Amino acid sequence: MSNQFFADIPTIRYEGPDSHNELAYRFYDKDRVVMGKRMEDHLRFAACFWHTFCWPGSDVFGGGTFNRPWHRGANDAAAAHEKRETAFEFFTKLDIPFYCFHDVDVMADAQSVSEHRSHFAEAVDHLEALQGTSGRRLLWGTANLFSHPRFAAGAATSPDPEVYAFAAMQVRDALEATHRLGGANYVLWGGREGYETLANTNLGREMDNFGRFLAMVVEHKHKIGFDGTILIEPKPHEPTKHQYDFDTATVYGFLKRYGLENEVCVNIEANHATLGGHTFEHELAMASALGIFGSIDANRGDHQNGWDTDQFPNSAEEMTLAMLEVLRAGGFTNGGFNFDAKVRRQSVDAADLFYGHVGGIDTVARGLLNAAAIIEDGRIDQIRSERYAGWDNDLGKKIGTLDLGGIADLAEKEALNPKHRSGQQERIENLVNRFC
Amino acid sequence: MSNQFFADIPTIRYEGPDSHNELAYRFYDKDRVVMGKRMEDHLRFAACFWHTFCWPGSDVFGGGTFNRPWHRGANDAAAAHEKRETAFEFFTKLDIPFYCFHDVDVMADAQSVSEHRSHFAEAVDHLEALQGTSGRRLLWGTANLFSHPRFAAGAATSPDPEVYAFAAMQVRDALEATHRLGGANYVLWGGREGYETLANTNLGREMDNFGRFLAMVVEHKHKIGFDGTILIEPKPHEPTKHQYDFDTATVYGFLKRYGLENEVCVNIEANHATLGGHTFEHELAMASALGIFGSIDANRGDHQNGWDTDQFPNSAEEMTLAMLEVLRAGGFTNGGFNFDAKVRRQSVDAADLFYGHVGGIDTVARGLLNAAAIIEDGRIDQIRSERYAGWDNDLGKKIGTLDLGGIADLAEKEALNPKHRSGQQERIENLVNRFC
Amino acid sequence: MSNQFFADIPTIRYEGPDSHNELAYRFYDKDRVVMGKRMEDHLRFAACFWHTFCWPGSDVFGGGTFNRPWHRGANDAAAAHEKRETAFEFFTKLDIPFYCFHDVDVMADAQSVSEHRSHFAEAVDHLEALQGTSGRRLLWGTANLFSHPRFAAGAATSPDPEVYAFAAMQVRDALEATHRLGGANYVLWGGREGYETLANTNLGREMDNFGRFLAMVVEHKHKIGFDGTILIEPKPHEPTKHQYDFDTATVYGFLKRYGLENEVCVNIEANHATLGGHTFEHELAMASALGIFGSIDANRGDHQNGWDTDQFPNSAEEMTLAMLEVLRAGGFTNGGFNFDAKVRRQSVDAADLFYGHVGGIDTVARGLLNAAAIIEDGRIDQIRSERYAGWDNDLGKKIGTLDLGGIADLAEKEALNPKHRSGQQERIENLVNRFC
Amino acid sequence: MSNQFFADIPTIRYEGPDSHNELAYRFYDKDRVVMGKRMEDHLRFAACFWHTFCWPGSDVFGGGTFNRPWHRGANDAAAAHEKRETAFEFFTKLDIPFYCFHDVDVMADAQSVSEHRSHFAEAVDHLEALQGTSGRRLLWGTANLFSHPRFAAGAATSPDPEVYAFAAMQVRDALEATHRLGGANYVLWGGREGYETLANTNLGREMDNFGRFLAMVVEHKHKIGFDGTILIEPKPHEPTKHQYDFDTATVYGFLKRYGLENEVCVNIEANHATLGGHTFEHELAMASALGIFGSIDANRGDHQNGWDTDQFPNSAEEMTLAMLEVLRAGGFTNGGFNFDAKVRRQSVDAADLFYGHVGGIDTVARGLLNAAAIIEDGRIDQIRSERYAGWDNDLGKKIGTLDLGGIADLAEKEALNPKHRSGQQERIENLVNRFC
Repeated sequence: MSNQFFADIPTIRYEGPDSHNELAYRFYDKDRVVMGKRMEDHLRFAACFWHTFCWPGSDVFGGGTFNRPWHRGANDAAAAHEKRETAFEFFTKLDIPFYCFHDVDVMADAQSVSEHRSHFAEAVDHLEALQGTSGRRLLWGTANLFSHPRFAAGAATSPDPEVYAFAAMQVRDALEATHRLGGANYVLWGGREGYETLANTNLGREMDNFGRFLAMVVEHKHKIGFDGTILIEPKPHEPTKHQYDFDTATVYGFLKRYGLENEVCVNIEANHATLGGHTFEHELAMASALGIFGSIDANRGDHQNGWDTDQFPNSAEEMTLAMLEVLRAGGFTNGGFNFDAKVRRQSVDAADLFYGHVGGIDTVARGLLNAAAIIEDGRIDQIRSERYAGWDNDLGKKIGTLDLGGIADLAEKEALNPKHRSGQQERIENLVNRFC
Repeated sequence: MSNQFFADIPTIRYEGPDSHNELAYRFYDKDRVVMGKRMEDHLRFAACFWHTFCWPGSDVFGGGTFNRPWHRGANDAAAAHEKRETAFEFFTKLDIPFYCFHDVDVMADAQSVSEHRSHFAEAVDHLEALQGTSGRRLLWGTANLFSHPRFAAGAATSPDPEVYAFAAMQVRDALEATHRLGGANYVLWGGREGYETLANTNLGREMDNFGRFLAMVVEHKHKIGFDGTILIEPKPHEPTKHQYDFDTATVYGFLKRYGLENEVCVNIEANHATLGGHTFEHELAMASALGIFGSIDANRGDHQNGWDTDQFPNSAEEMTLAMLEVLRAGGFTNGGFNFDAKVRRQSVDAADLFYGHVGGIDTVARGLLNAAAIIEDGRIDQIRSERYAGWDNDLGKKIGTLDLGGIADLAEKEALNPKHRSGQQERIENLVNRFC
Repeated sequence: MSNQFFADIPTIRYEGPDSHNELAYRFYDKDRVVMGKRMEDHLRFAACFWHTFCWPGSDVFGGGTFNRPWHRGANDAAAAHEKRETAFEFFTKLDIPFYCFHDVDVMADAQSVSEHRSHFAEAVDHLEALQGTSGRRLLWGTANLFSHPRFAAGAATSPDPEVYAFAAMQVRDALEATHRLGGANYVLWGGREGYETLANTNLGREMDNFGRFLAMVVEHKHKIGFDGTILIEPKPHEPTKHQYDFDTATVYGFLKRYGLENEVCVNIEANHATLGGHTFEHELAMASALGIFGSIDANRGDHQNGWDTDQFPNSAEEMTLAMLEVLRAGGFTNGGFNFDAKVRRQSVDAADLFYGHVGGIDTVARGLLNAAAIIEDGRIDQIRSERYAGWDNDLGKKIGTLDLGGIADLAEKEALNPKHRSGQQERIENLVNRFC
Repeated sequence: MSNQFFADIPTIRYEGPDSHNELAYRFYDKDRVVMGKRMEDHLRFAACFWHTFCWPGSDVFGGGTFNRPWHRGANDAAAAHEKRETAFEFFTKLDIPFYCFHDVDVMADAQSVSEHRSHFAEAVDHLEALQGTSGRRLLWGTANLFSHPRFAAGAATSPDPEVYAFAAMQVRDALEATHRLGGANYVLWGGREGYETLANTNLGREMDNFGRFLAMVVEHKHKIGFDGTILIEPKPHEPTKHQYDFDTATVYGFLKRYGLENEVCVNIEANHATLGGHTFEHELAMASALGIFGSIDANRGDHQNGWDTDQFPNSAEEMTLAMLEVLRAGGFTNGGFNFDAKVRRQSVDAADLFYGHVGGIDTVARGLLNAAAIIEDGRIDQIRSERYAGWDNDLGKKIGTLDLGGIADLAEKEALNPKHRSGQQERIENLVNRFC
């Protein structure tokens, strides 16, 4: 029985900040109402298959350390079955409502299109059953278009149309499975949709192929009646030198170019934000301002290392700033917090998977509580609002009615000589810290 | 007489690769025809006022080292006059066709709107005269909306509408001056159009103000009959923590958002590209693919330092890759190569200004010659083209006619099992090196 | 009277976490005893002259925004006097025990060696008097060997021996002044002791000159009977491309090379650590392990920006990790926490200087309280200690007595096949967060 | 027969710059004498086993793409034998004198100490035979102490003494094998000798264990009469968050701390230099100045990506600066240029391995020719030398005889007022470019 794997771990429950139990929630109290909504409904936590159940603990310099039972032989039907069972045991013991997967995460290995389709279908049947018995739901599904050697040069941006077609098959099936499983969203992360060198790359052609692919996905979504959200996940690079979905602003331009800005939103990952030269909260605020905020991949990077470390979030301070943007954006519609995070390669025990997620969940929960307190306090929003007050006064309104020449004439006529006023950054930072 | 300043420096002439003269061009032969065009017409070199005539050699940790005569007292009418005279002596001795300026670079300091207008007008009169006598032309003009303390929180994105109006006055005047002086382009670099902290920033409001400002500039351009190109210069950060015009892809999205993608192009700076996590050639290729390639600020950064070092380009290898993209984009229309580059703070001699520009100009010229040779050779373009050949064959064409489901069905019916083919990156890199 | 400048600001007092007063300490309770020592004695806070009283709010892209009264004219004797008075008013109102300065920060501008000596002497007389009336003490003094144009190519590493001699004069006088003022340390930050390009640099010669300079400073310290600590402040680059005192490990090697490892310690700056690819706590732990931990320059950088932003520390989480290393190192001997931090260029109000320092002081105080709680709790130290327990057992001890061949033979004889045990990183991170 | 693998590839020969043969050397003419030495003797090229014969083309996001015959089953005795045969075919066809290996690269997989020893011994016998028939020599050997899960927490710095002992066994055997095979050097790269989090790490204890390990290696080298050089290879991070051998200056301090600075040198890798915030030439110049320059791992990184890309060097410009430092250091003694470089994951053809190495070898050869020309020209060395001329004059010499007070008095007595002279960086950069 696969559920032997976590036999020693109890279901994780809320016990409050003073609990000495290291396998309990101290801040995530799912039924607590914050700003009119239960925490569970605010945060919509999901755990993922790939890092937690598929990755063996390998890295570029060494092999797998984890020694999970389902990794000891080939990834055949029995191993895939055991993995799915164990995963749902995990989701249930964490007591979080959602999970996420790539097609290949949940199925036995396949050598052909037909094997892919039949193995995946078998997996989806099982997932549906597991959802039923466990009460867990699907936050989003996706297709893995980057791990198999056929995708070495991309999928929707591959120079080879056969690869493009193979990818279309996987996405069609994964989208339909997501629909059938009641998924709230469908994600596309452009793993190798980018380039290694411009010297062999036709940038315009690849982007056009990618745009058309995305448009077809949107069309298919409507055709099958899927009412979840299609999400693009930005990342600047890795594995490719340059990834077309560099960051939120880039994705927005891409969507506008192909007329998809009302159809597709972004799934923002903290570690991808920092790799791209942004803070996590920047990407959230930008997505919100551009009207494409969708969902979140919760993790953190290492500020001294230049690759995707996918560590569990553990800074309540940083999460407070992020949650502030989430709340300002009105919170999630279909989105949620998926832990695209992995335990360190040295963290080989089953319990480590729980420590990672419990810590991450509590960090996000603290962020929510802090951010809600900041909003309810109101001082920071008021300082920010007063900073722009001039735009709501006579001059600001008048400027809204004039053209460039008119405004320039006004500046001259009024002999404007604006003095700089303090931006009060240090004061505001202190105020934020009052809530951390 | 200001022209004493460069009295010891001869006019720079082409003398060929074997010349031992360190103040001669070895590769820039302005009348040499490359791919059907004179080098001068291909490259359209400009030198700039700010780094070369305004900056005193200061940095954050120390004062000016340069001791130029026009910096010894206040920047009054006489000093500004001397600076302009000296600059045109310089442009002429370099024998390049163009120059660039910010309003405040060329004028005496002003304390009010009216002083700004009158001092600037006086400067423009003089520039017009100097253009006439020297035969030099204006590649682009711009307004400095970031140095004066009033712009500490931005100009078009300032929270204070008075600042916005002051900026409108400067831009109106600078745009009209550019028109009068026959400028080929007008540039907006968003120096402080960004934020220091999200905590005091209304991102959406600032971007909307910025979008409207830009739309008004475009409208004014048409109103006055200026037929040059309006250019935005991307930069990811510095001086601000985050700059709205992060990179070319971001600017494209911004233009699309405000309906300006057919009105505005980008002025791409090499050092800004690398600060943003891109190669210089990436930004050029992206601008070309998106249809917004305008002009270039030639310089280089330091790969180990995280700020804008604005050094002169000195890598013919890197410039070859950049020029390849310029040639593929069809070359410049209104744009050109402006040296937004400065001699090092230790390079205090007048001759150093010439060494910097002569080296930079020859580097760009070598890049052009190498890139033209690559294109004329044809092998690299052929390898690239063959890589995508499948898209021009039956399968590729058929995919163009099907929807997602149709393509997926095709993959199944044909039992596609694509094998990865070599991307030949090492071979192509060797081929490129044959031309460097 | 200069003390008009902060007339509106009260002396900052401890009022506890629940205080609503934004100009009070919520965590820094100077007389509170933590692990057997008063907080004031643990933390030994200092404020600095340069960022707070000398910098006008300029940056590379724009002029000063601050408009301080003593900056309105030349930096003559009267202005310098007013600056010193105002600074001591500030130190006193912050109620912190220490301050720090560079020679040129506190004196009127000088045009020659003799002026430098007389202006500086005048300033030192005044500082001594101000110390007496205010009860404030000197944490450290230093000489500015990087701002004047004469130091453009370095001071102790200058190619010009005249510059070296000028620097020796400044350091001799600054060291003697520090001694006279009862300073606890003397600092050398190698502002331009590095290079811009290897092409014009004799690395070995410059390092030898630098080593000898430092040895002479140590010799002079002993000669005059100064019993404070000589400190080197590591920084990887900026303003120079490469700075010889790159990081703590580099400085250690440098000290060993010139036989100074028992004479000189490091002054570790948080922002310099991160610019060098390290965490702040790494540099502290490394300095402690190498026996050269001296003092701290408290600030923070911006993880997305590649230059020294010198912001006030505001992360209690990060400071907790740093304070853990400080406590493990046994705390300060002569060192202390100097705020080498500056308000943002937009923070133009006098009050902003207080917000910055109050927030920074409370952040450090929280870090101390959290770190002390972690140590008193003991769990984390125990986990760490158990991880190495094998080294205290038979095998570990035996290894200590064998040579390479002996150990290899042992591995074979015992047929060792070690299994990896969990490093428990996620669990430990959760434990740390219990104290934040 | 394994030599079927490269059957289509001819032995690579020098054909000169004008050759159209893409599989010929255009610059590497092994018998050409440069500055009194044959190019082969200057450059001492080696190819490596790991990237070229062991790595299957996998990365963190996807599986192997290369499909080499010896990877199709288990890495047993037959596969290892075929790999060794193929590798020597490759070294021979490249016509380079040297190769390099880790123990596990060349042997069948082992499950125990005794298997490790016997499988490795078998491999060494074969290598010895292959050296004899091919005439290829061993530049250096090393032990892989980072890939097996047992080394997840380090080897010489492991918290587990069993792991330390296992590592000692591997190093003892690899060192003795290197000696037997006539290797010129023995390398230690501290793959996981670092930490993931300070929270579970005893920095001082780990460094002391590491220091003792290295001392034992040196002792064993003398014991067995190995007269090659022991080399440490610096790298700042990856796979660990922080690696103890961060860079050359750090390694120097480490060697000094454990009294090994006259016993151990550094093996400098270009990509590790740039990951550590340095140029390649910086690390070479630093190693030379500190007297620990040993050997080179030739490759390049990607300036926009923050991980070790290990690409083949392809910039003759950058290599010229590096070779300048190598020549200034007097060239190699035991060291050489080992290609620690891998073809891209998309470069799946056997020919790609040749394109990569041929391009890299020619790049290094061009660097040598350019650097030798610069030195023979003499101008740059002269400019540099003149820059320091003051130190050879009266003042410079006098300073050498005085103490700090004496120099300070001199500055005052002579009323020194040094003026900054130009560092001529732009002029020198132009001169360098004359030779590229």
